[in-house]
Amino acid sequence: MIKTHGFAVQSATSVPAPFDYEQREPGPKDVQISIDFCGVCHSDIHQAHNDWGNGNYPMVPGHEIIGTVKRVGAEVTKFKVGDLAGVGCMVDSCRVCASCKEGEEQYCDKGETVMTYNAKGKDGKYTFGGYGENIVVDEAFVLTVPRNLNPAAVAPLLCAGITTYSPLKHWKAGPGKMIGVIGLGGLGHMALKFSHAFGAKTVQFTRSSAKIADAKRLGADEVILTKEPNWHTSHAGTFDFILDCVSAAHDITPYLALLKRGGTLCTVGLPATPLAISAFSVVQGRKSFAGSNIGGIKETQEMLDFCSEHNIVSDIEMTSFGKIEEAWERVIKGDVKYRFVLDLKTLKS
Amino acid sequence: MIKTHGFAVQSATSVPAPFDYEQREPGPKDVQISIDFCGVCHSDIHQAHNDWGNGNYPMVPGHEIIGTVKRVGAEVTKFKVGDLAGVGCMVDSCRVCASCKEGEEQYCDKGETVMTYNAKGKDGKYTFGGYGENIVVDEAFVLTVPRNLNPAAVAPLLCAGITTYSPLKHWKAGPGKMIGVIGLGGLGHMALKFSHAFGAKTVQFTRSSAKIADAKRLGADEVILTKEPNWHTSHAGTFDFILDCVSAAHDITPYLALLKRGGTLCTVGLPATPLAISAFSVVQGRKSFAGSNIGGIKETQEMLDFCSEHNIVSDIEMTSFGKIEEAWERVIKGDVKYRFVLDLKTLKS
Repeated sequence: MIKTHGFAVQSATSVPAPFDYEQREPGPKDVQISIDFCGVCHSDIHQAHNDWGNGNYPMVPGHEIIGTVKRVGAEVTKFKVGDLAGVGCMVDSCRVCASCKEGEEQYCDKGETVMTYNAKGKDGKYTFGGYGENIVVDEAFVLTVPRNLNPAAVAPLLCAGITTYSPLKHWKAGPGKMIGVIGLGGLGHMALKFSHAFGAKTVQFTRSSAKIADAKRLGADEVILTKEPNWHTSHAGTFDFILDCVSAAHDITPYLALLKRGGTLCTVGLPATPLAISAFSVVQGRKSFAGSNIGGIKETQEMLDFCSEHNIVSDIEMTSFGKIEEAWERVIKGDVKYRFVLDLKTLKS
Repeated sequence: MIKTHGFAVQSATSVPAPFDYEQREPGPKDVQISIDFCGVCHSDIHQAHNDWGNGNYPMVPGHEIIGTVKRVGAEVTKFKVGDLAGVGCMVDSCRVCASCKEGEEQYCDKGETVMTYNAKGKDGKYTFGGYGENIVVDEAFVLTVPRNLNPAAVAPLLCAGITTYSPLKHWKAGPGKMIGVIGLGGLGHMALKFSHAFGAKTVQFTRSSAKIADAKRLGADEVILTKEPNWHTSHAGTFDFILDCVSAAHDITPYLALLKRGGTLCTVGLPATPLAISAFSVVQGRKSFAGSNIGGIKETQEMLDFCSEHNIVSDIEMTSFGKIEEAWERVIKGDVKYRFVLDLKTLKS
């Protein structure tokens, strides 16, 4: 076993504190990654606080992991020692169902997707995530990280990046399309970058006029202030697709009215309480309210390669375990532009 | 002007009573139809009772109209005197927007769709529907009715038929697909017939074991009783598409769990109160909650031709204006198999 030093929460009310645990010895197909950087995702906090009712403790959060390959199993073909590698939200799945075979392991038909932390692996042991020195993962779930990008700023691509890239690709954001993004945070700022890079006309919805300049810098062609009167009537029926990145419950009815015939509003923000949707708001115009969950491993690699080609990374603030409590508080307040990344070197030194 | 005798409601609390009104003289492109049959749609009652808040009185309901062409304007090319003709839910639209040009006049981008009754036409006058002797409609909104089918039983195809045919076609019901139908009434019984005719495996959801035999006769391969424990867990993740034909508010969460990855639940039932939808129920599996509104004129003609070829009509009970109050009461109770059709001859004699 590999002794690993990291940070864990011990209960729904505690903050991450030093914790020593073990990772398995690499099997034939495993890659041992010495973690360099880990993004701080709002879902780390939701799960640590047991907001979704699925918390297992001790919990080592973190699923936006960038590191250096330290050891590889005998049958590993994709990685060698010294490679830059990434691990996102998943570390395993059934691998044989239709969804897994089609590269959509996040939707494993058998429900056997193993999340990177706070989940039971096939060995029956709970997984521990990126708030630690080491992680051991089957190479099938390890990503190759482009060398031309800042690795710390690549970390958030593994959750915030793929979560927005996948639905924008699925619903065909591109030239000639009008794409809306609700919310400008960790997810929203990546959605702007991708939608813009895909060549779509990209519109940010926000309540805050303070965000206009930043939204435009990040790729928005237009910013609609949702506190203005008539903001929705003046754009009715003009959007092909709207990506809703807001994690709090909110009224989506006015956004449905903005969609063209056949348009889709897709949520990736996971509000904890149900949304109220009038049947009339989707019946008129054959509209859809949809959801999307991260993306498969194949698509995550495609996204990283796209980012390499288009020089896209997340806008980040570096932080350290000494400041993790403050970082979590600022994430909860939405006070970060646009993702905290933990520097694991602070743990190793 | 063409003097017309019919039945109208005079207020949200009255029942249809004899009413004399006028229809315009046929213009160059108009068809005057002597109405033979008119289906009784639940939405006739909703609008008459002002349930949707859009009632204008006096209101002559009826948008499932079959009749005989009596006069045609000089420029009419599709119809001649004596032809069997149909009029559904719409009688006009802007005709120049993208939706209208693509044959989806029900989604007119300018919002200028003119409904067959209880709507203001381009001449500024309110439209009167099929509960009367005559109707005058531009030939662009008149359907050719196949001669090989019982014309009374064709009438409900013009609303209940196209409302279910259109989404089943749009979401590609056919061989190899698993299609669910919620609710067995006017809409649901047509959905069963179409889904079966398209070659899909077709499953009826119902609370009532008394409906099993009828559902199977109408085209269901399987009937799932939703009052049984675990009815939804045993079929989780198996449906490509579910058509929700229920007009009362109900919990759609268990049905969303029945969808495969990428599946869609589409409502055509128009519950008056919003539906509560958890983001988690669509995010996991990239699922969609959608709506669909009748169908365009071109698709309605395609549907009628399909029915002619496959010998499909609505299951009907004939009624007359003398019994309209009773018929409406039975529609509200869901006590009709599966559509009342008014015999207009009772009016003319």
